Amino acid sequence: MTERVLILGGGFAGTAAARALRGQGLEVTLIDQRNYHLFQPLLYQVAAGDLQAEAIATPQRRLLRGGLHFRLGRVARLRLPQRSILLDDGDILSYDYLFIALGTVTNFFGNAAIANHALQIKGMEAAEAVRSHIFSALEAASHCTDPAQQQRWLSFVIAGGGPTGVEFCAALLELLRVVLPRDYPELRLEDLQVTLVQGSAALLPGFSAPLQGQAARKLQKLGAQLRFHTHVQGFDGQMVQCQPDPAIPARTLVWTAGVTANPLAATMPGARGPGGRIIVDPHLRLPEYPEVFILGDLACSSNGEFWPQVAPFALQSARHVALVLQSQRQGRPLPPPFAYRDPGSMAVIGRFDAVCEIERWHLHWHGWSAWLLWLGLHLYHIIGTRNRLLTLLDWGTDYLRHSAAVEIIRSPPDSSDP
Amino acid sequence: MTERVLILGGGFAGTAAARALRGQGLEVTLIDQRNYHLFQPLLYQVAAGDLQAEAIATPQRRLLRGGLHFRLGRVARLRLPQRSILLDDGDILSYDYLFIALGTVTNFFGNAAIANHALQIKGMEAAEAVRSHIFSALEAASHCTDPAQQQRWLSFVIAGGGPTGVEFCAALLELLRVVLPRDYPELRLEDLQVTLVQGSAALLPGFSAPLQGQAARKLQKLGAQLRFHTHVQGFDGQMVQCQPDPAIPARTLVWTAGVTANPLAATMPGARGPGGRIIVDPHLRLPEYPEVFILGDLACSSNGEFWPQVAPFALQSARHVALVLQSQRQGRPLPPPFAYRDPGSMAVIGRFDAVCEIERWHLHWHGWSAWLLWLGLHLYHIIGTRNRLLTLLDWGTDYLRHSAAVEIIRSPPDSSDP
Repeated sequence: MTERVLILGGGFAGTAAARALRGQGLEVTLIDQRNYHLFQPLLYQVAAGDLQAEAIATPQRRLLRGGLHFRLGRVARLRLPQRSILLDDGDILSYDYLFIALGTVTNFFGNAAIANHALQIKGMEAAEAVRSHIFSALEAASHCTDPAQQQRWLSFVIAGGGPTGVEFCAALLELLRVVLPRDYPELRLEDLQVTLVQGSAALLPGFSAPLQGQAARKLQKLGAQLRFHTHVQGFDGQMVQCQPDPAIPARTLVWTAGVTANPLAATMPGARGPGGRIIVDPHLRLPEYPEVFILGDLACSSNGEFWPQVAPFALQSARHVALVLQSQRQGRPLPPPFAYRDPGSMAVIGRFDAVCEIERWHLHWHGWSAWLLWLGLHLYHIIGTRNRLLTLLDWGTDYLRHSAAVEIIRSPPDSSDP
Repeated sequence: MTERVLILGGGFAGTAAARALRGQGLEVTLIDQRNYHLFQPLLYQVAAGDLQAEAIATPQRRLLRGGLHFRLGRVARLRLPQRSILLDDGDILSYDYLFIALGTVTNFFGNAAIANHALQIKGMEAAEAVRSHIFSALEAASHCTDPAQQQRWLSFVIAGGGPTGVEFCAALLELLRVVLPRDYPELRLEDLQVTLVQGSAALLPGFSAPLQGQAARKLQKLGAQLRFHTHVQGFDGQMVQCQPDPAIPARTLVWTAGVTANPLAATMPGARGPGGRIIVDPHLRLPEYPEVFILGDLACSSNGEFWPQVAPFALQSARHVALVLQSQRQGRPLPPPFAYRDPGSMAVIGRFDAVCEIERWHLHWHGWSAWLLWLGLHLYHIIGTRNRLLTLLDWGTDYLRHSAAVEIIRSPPDSSDP
């Protein structure tokens, strides 16, 4: 009888694992609550109007053509002892092998007020909601007669100075500097205020100190106000409370200050690492259930090795897991234990400007050549000719015509009429 | 003092009128609840996954550059005696001249059950919701174990056989015939059922009888079931009630069976024409308030002349109204009364196939040459290089690669996480 593999999650890890298992005589089903794979590293550009969402979304069924199966659904419960999972539509699916690649969710650290009022850049609709909010804020400011309120509409706060926060901050400033003078003559560029609030002493934790400094200088040059050693403590939609003071009047808070494991991870047996991640054995298996593999952002090394929550790790973990399963089934010895090979890190800090660091070659640099490398790599990794062309078209609009690719304010479908 | 013109509505009529008034020493403000102009004739393609919504949306502020103003907002009340309008955010805007181009809304003829459960193709988000619903239905069918339920998921009913209903029906069938065999191997094309329900004896009312017959034959060849002299009477999300019987089991009803005047029209003085349209004088003015002009779908001739609710009429009415206003202000004689010049009608009835009719040259024909003309005209009228390129890219995907351009199921933003 054909052995069944269930893959939970269609991000980089889950989709790559499914494709790596193609043609091996397994019945492979990928389960996701979205019917598309999303190229998440560019999601911040959707939030900043640089890119349309459709350019970075690829239908799962297209990726899984050639014998792999897709099931749209949300996992309600894992039933590891029974080797099955329960979906929220009541269906129970059983497996011989389970790949868990459910990733992370935004971490508001239990602060309900922030969770209610802040925006986040996680998922296609959420990123589009950021863009819609930015343009709604400009519209509100443009006919606001109370100067104090107008200033709040023109004040944008970003919580978190990791890659997403820094890249979004740069993209937002580039956007506003382009759009405001041309399309909002009622508003003055000088009234804009973009503040990035970072808990630690530097932006881009993990990068080398010179590149951290370069990113901070570049954001400041673009007009950002940086507040280090500061935490956002609350937000009511009008005022961002900070620790230490002072508070920042603003109608917009974009939260990039942390992620935590998908809530289903908490229901699993065994030990947890930082951020609720699941401690795995050297082959990314759950020690208690060796038929269960943990991939991507959810996996945590048992020997203290640092595994970053990035696409290269997700892809490497998927390839390793597929190899382990293949070896097991063919009765061959297992491959050497998983070891993460760091290809380097990069972050865009403005038009034609990025920081880049390739640790194993001791390379750290920034500027247009780093940006070109970033551009080429991302374009290469976007899936499908159509999506590459859409991305190129939007980037052409952004960079060459110096305009915003997408300024559309989206509303919920039920408000379409009249 | 500069005279103020308020333009209500940013469709074809409102946007064209604003642009025609540029540079004439007037303070022109266009008011719309959307910050973009939508190329509505292609909206059915968004609903059928042929086209991404962003390809047919253009930011109003980009269109109004060069001295025209934009105000995002929804009109709550017209105050014609005071020469002002009230927006739903409480702002009151006064005018010297008012252009009302608020268009129509979907007409469910008071049937709340249909309004609650049916989908419609009016507005960007509504069209995307149709696409999302289609692909959700295919997903539901693909793991449905109850044959009766599965058949309902694979049954699509379109109410209305006008251009939108016919074009959407053809596009939906082309979509399903492409997507199903390739991406849904669990499903069988033979189980699909697409039914078009038309109240009268023929499709495409207003077209010549041979072309009506051609459209019907083409839809049937594509696999549609046509029911003439039939009205949809009810829909509970499971079963489409028809008059006369029988009912059609289906989870999807797309309603294209009628529009009616924007509800604000009912609050205005004077006489009404069919569909709640406003009877205007020969220069499209409100008889009681000659400083108020009615443009586009809302205008109804006082002498019984038929004005179709289509883009060419909207554009012609906008140009006429701008000319009348210019003549009035310059003390010149008014132009001849408005007369609609019919450029012809066309409707796409499948890949590489359209019906086309140019009455004043006595031309009626169909086939690929009609389709090519349709393609060229629509591409020409889409605003902006970027949107043309996006459209070409999507049509290339649809027609040449024979694939669906967009298969993404969208969800409300708040369900993005986890």
